[in-house]
Amino acid sequence: MSGEFELIGLLRERLALAGVSAGERVVVPSGDDAAVTVPGGATATSVDAIVDGVHFRRSTYSPEAIGAKALAVALSDLAAMGAEPGEAYVQLGLPDDLSEDELAGVGDGFGAVAAAHGVTVAGGDVVASPVLFLAITVVGHAPDTGSFVTRSGAEEGDALVLIGRVGGAAAGLLLLERPELRDTVEADVATALIERQTNPVALIDAGVALAAGGASAMIDVSDGLGADAGHVARSSGVRLELDLLTESVCTGVKEVAEAAGRDPLELAANGGEDYALLASVPLDRLDAVVEAVRRTSSGPALAGRVGAGEGVVLRGPTGREASAAGFDQVRSRARGAPT
Amino acid sequence: MSGEFELIGLLRERLALAGVSAGERVVVPSGDDAAVTVPGGATATSVDAIVDGVHFRRSTYSPEAIGAKALAVALSDLAAMGAEPGEAYVQLGLPDDLSEDELAGVGDGFGAVAAAHGVTVAGGDVVASPVLFLAITVVGHAPDTGSFVTRSGAEEGDALVLIGRVGGAAAGLLLLERPELRDTVEADVATALIERQTNPVALIDAGVALAAGGASAMIDVSDGLGADAGHVARSSGVRLELDLLTESVCTGVKEVAEAAGRDPLELAANGGEDYALLASVPLDRLDAVVEAVRRTSSGPALAGRVGAGEGVVLRGPTGREASAAGFDQVRSRARGAPT
Repeated sequence: MSGEFELIGLLRERLALAGVSAGERVVVPSGDDAAVTVPGGATATSVDAIVDGVHFRRSTYSPEAIGAKALAVALSDLAAMGAEPGEAYVQLGLPDDLSEDELAGVGDGFGAVAAAHGVTVAGGDVVASPVLFLAITVVGHAPDTGSFVTRSGAEEGDALVLIGRVGGAAAGLLLLERPELRDTVEADVATALIERQTNPVALIDAGVALAAGGASAMIDVSDGLGADAGHVARSSGVRLELDLLTESVCTGVKEVAEAAGRDPLELAANGGEDYALLASVPLDRLDAVVEAVRRTSSGPALAGRVGAGEGVVLRGPTGREASAAGFDQVRSRARGAPT
Repeated sequence: MSGEFELIGLLRERLALAGVSAGERVVVPSGDDAAVTVPGGATATSVDAIVDGVHFRRSTYSPEAIGAKALAVALSDLAAMGAEPGEAYVQLGLPDDLSEDELAGVGDGFGAVAAAHGVTVAGGDVVASPVLFLAITVVGHAPDTGSFVTRSGAEEGDALVLIGRVGGAAAGLLLLERPELRDTVEADVATALIERQTNPVALIDAGVALAAGGASAMIDVSDGLGADAGHVARSSGVRLELDLLTESVCTGVKEVAEAAGRDPLELAANGGEDYALLASVPLDRLDAVVEAVRRTSSGPALAGRVGAGEGVVLRGPTGREASAAGFDQVRSRARGAPT
């Protein structure tokens, strides 16, 4: 492993090759003591770390997937605010046995996601670590604070919409960890499920459309649909009554879950890492919001309503209720493991 | 170890107990998908990670010292820009065997430094990790981009000033790792040296004074005086001729270095983690800058001049030249170890 400055140089090269932009708000880029920006308006800032053995495994993930996932999951939080992504800062913990080729791959994956969303990598830090980790900071922008959508604005009577599908990342993890399960679905379905786990996509355009259209509350589904609905219910002081439609569950989740001896509804409702968006929308804006989201690549699905009270009810396609436990980022080290 | 949300709650409590402020620029604080701020003017953003076994050891550091050091070293980068610290974001990788008491201690140490500098903790992330790490993001503010001081503005003829002292953190690390060396200095000197290693102080007031007074370039001394001077020389396209005065070396460094079989000048010049500030100042502003810095708690020392050419010459108190190798944050895992 080379020294700190050579590694930083290597990463810079890979980001440039990936076409990562210079960033209109960045006055002093990476390389000084701090990056200098002129944000203007309001900013949304979120941090998200992924760690080998917890959020990915070097044994089953490509280096490119590790880099891509690190940035995508961080950007998903900006999507949930309705923010336009601006700058990213990356802190890398690098173990001795990580080769420069692997590091280049991580940089390529990170760079590809950054370039796809017009994100500037404005700064970073590279340190030695016994385990590979990426700790990402993302900064999004809007003209004013009212342009952002928090978790706390849902009101009784609002409709719930779900953008993107759930269950696929959890099913994909099962396929990664237990390759013998792959025969339970068609090869292209298995590939798509694994892709949901290793290469999640932040629904930035849909988030911006929801915010512009007047969503009253929004969250990205990272911990699991049930758990994240619970965050909105708690922040807004309401009850979320969710109906999970068949069309909102990834193809193949049922088959993989059953082959693995898991409840398909629980896997879809609580598997986590979906990076779908759940939003509440006042009824008088619903048609316009649905239309605006439809123009992005992700179609919305009606997912229920906001009621009075507290907590979450989550019913599956057959009407059966799921629990709302969710995926705990601290307790989950062994999640999905064969045991 | 409790779940993610209990741990975040515990940390929030400790930060509140430490008196961490709410932050005038923060509109939506920690707890939503992202923190919403209205920065105004220009921002300086820096990220810095510390990892168990690399930048500290749980076996020799108190939990409070770990939390305090994580934030102090990040803030030191803002000091080097002349920025007023605003918000911090903390990403914590928590191993299974870290107790809640230890985590509370980390929060207390972090909170004490945040409160001392008026820093708001606007967001964070807590994840499982085989090794304890803290990945910090700090955001500082100024009315406009011209208020910040980069590494690239040093010009031939400028004076060099050094704020704070060097060598103490490296000597303190030797004392931590080799307790038998502690008898070589008075007990209070040993304590002060260890404190330089475990509880570094970001020279925010001095950095702001240097920026306001018209420093042309500035850097914080984290990699070692020689190496960091090299960064300024490279960025500015000049040669730095440094004279390290006796008064700029921490008391006891000479004795500890000699007892450890290390060259005292090399330890002072290249030990790293000093978090002193090195600035270049045009001669016509020098008196005013020195006077302004003197009003802060840290007195400045004249440390040489900026010449034409490239690279760094670093002479010790006796006129002998030191190398300018520095402390590599990636290669340094075993730095200071008895071998």
